[in-house]
Amino acid sequence: MAASNRVLIVGSVALDSVETPLGQVTDALGGSAVYASVAANYYSPVSLLGVVGDDFPEEHVAMLNGMGIDTSGLQVEEGQTFRWRGRYDHDVNQAHTIATHLNVFESFRPELPASHREADFVFLANIDPELQLSVLDQVDNDDALTFADTMNFWIETKREELLEVFRRVNVVFINDAEARELCETSSLIRAGNRLLEMGPEVVVIKKGEHGALMFHPDQHFAVPSYPLMEVCDPTGAGDSFAGGFIGSLASEPVRDPAAYRRAAVRGSVVASYNVEDFSLGRLKSLTDEELHQRFLEFQRFTYFE
Amino acid sequence: MAASNRVLIVGSVALDSVETPLGQVTDALGGSAVYASVAANYYSPVSLLGVVGDDFPEEHVAMLNGMGIDTSGLQVEEGQTFRWRGRYDHDVNQAHTIATHLNVFESFRPELPASHREADFVFLANIDPELQLSVLDQVDNDDALTFADTMNFWIETKREELLEVFRRVNVVFINDAEARELCETSSLIRAGNRLLEMGPEVVVIKKGEHGALMFHPDQHFAVPSYPLMEVCDPTGAGDSFAGGFIGSLASEPVRDPAAYRRAAVRGSVVASYNVEDFSLGRLKSLTDEELHQRFLEFQRFTYFE
Repeated sequence: MAASNRVLIVGSVALDSVETPLGQVTDALGGSAVYASVAANYYSPVSLLGVVGDDFPEEHVAMLNGMGIDTSGLQVEEGQTFRWRGRYDHDVNQAHTIATHLNVFESFRPELPASHREADFVFLANIDPELQLSVLDQVDNDDALTFADTMNFWIETKREELLEVFRRVNVVFINDAEARELCETSSLIRAGNRLLEMGPEVVVIKKGEHGALMFHPDQHFAVPSYPLMEVCDPTGAGDSFAGGFIGSLASEPVRDPAAYRRAAVRGSVVASYNVEDFSLGRLKSLTDEELHQRFLEFQRFTYFE
Repeated sequence: MAASNRVLIVGSVALDSVETPLGQVTDALGGSAVYASVAANYYSPVSLLGVVGDDFPEEHVAMLNGMGIDTSGLQVEEGQTFRWRGRYDHDVNQAHTIATHLNVFESFRPELPASHREADFVFLANIDPELQLSVLDQVDNDDALTFADTMNFWIETKREELLEVFRRVNVVFINDAEARELCETSSLIRAGNRLLEMGPEVVVIKKGEHGALMFHPDQHFAVPSYPLMEVCDPTGAGDSFAGGFIGSLASEPVRDPAAYRRAAVRGSVVASYNVEDFSLGRLKSLTDEELHQRFLEFQRFTYFE
């Protein structure tokens, strides 16, 4: 693998309490920036930008640093860390939010340290589109490749700001229900093409258990999901998909369509491991060999001639 | 392509009245055996077994014969042809049945002409599992490769007979909602494996706009659906998928996993054309070149390295 570019990832850092048919965890490490950073870090070096409260366990920071993730952009504010409490029933594509406590996240104003402003790869994970725009304003590299993810809450409450983000980034990640909602169409193919018209060069629609679709102006790529018998906890699946995708792309010497396809598959590989356990249980301890073997499995179960 | 085996297809022959967001048709040619036969016939010779009333338009039989489909097993009974009236809203995966009039279909007892009893490939398209069993009893070829499809109605009303069919055939086609219902699990991967335990050597779960999953005991294959901007009429998508699948397989000199994978892709190709128009509008006039080009497109939008 070629020498990798550093990836700057901005998003939430959270303590999640999650119930699924297979169990539950309380105040476990989570958040879009955490899942994405740990996933991306398997392929390229990562700097994480976010905010936590003074209650945030030191061990989590130590774990991220132990993996080589740069947390110099992790602000510690007086107060409680962002907490999310949710439940998944048998339909693992559907999260039911029980409670969201923004806490210190409510007044988060991302400040890029000088060393982060020249990042070559910037991922705006799921946060308020106004914050995503403020990060873009601080990036001081016209050639930076920029990526954004979002969620239905922002489509409904900050649509204009979100569309401005989509106009300004190179790649948009969005899930299937959100794409249908934003584009007001039941056809994901139509939605993908409409999203391209909104500005980005590449659109990736995440379909959970049905895989992902990637749209370039002149081509289309479909990757199925990994055939897991059981999903333990889907939290962070989309974030780890995007992280693996971006980390993979940042590790490539040439960002051509073939590199984007590998990125979509590697994102699927990382996400498939992530959902095998709660929180970062599985995601934090993958080996290069495990990642490579599952990539080969994706080739085997999609190949025909 | 090698010299093909003849495929015997048993199922419904219907006059469908369908409304979709893009239009409607009244008393248009349809039925599981018709869609499957026309699809299979692009790859292998087909004999169709079914029943119609004396109101069945002569032109439909002429069209089938004009394509080379053997309709000597099409029984004509006094009375009205089976009629189905349905509607699709924007969710094209979900048919809403407005009315079903079985008419002559209600007393249909499939009788295999002597010439059909030694068929090498037999497809039991969606009909009452008791009729599917009666056809299996009449097949006089221990080496015949047998295939069955079904629908939720039979899962709910004739579960035991349906399970007996699954024990006796080589390949089962089933859609995602039906697989979840029959296997009482939300996981399609688990459902596919449970279905294999019920008897068939191969299980194909059809997922509509999300493609299909194929399960062998020791391997798995995933094919996405063709990226259509718009589905005109999804009626017959599953039947034409199965027909294309079986016709393709019957045309192969060796039925190895690679041949099954090509069959799943060719089934997807034919089904993707079928949904572009009402009834047999598009399905009846495909060229080898169109089929081949779309097969190549499937390779292009799924390939990665």
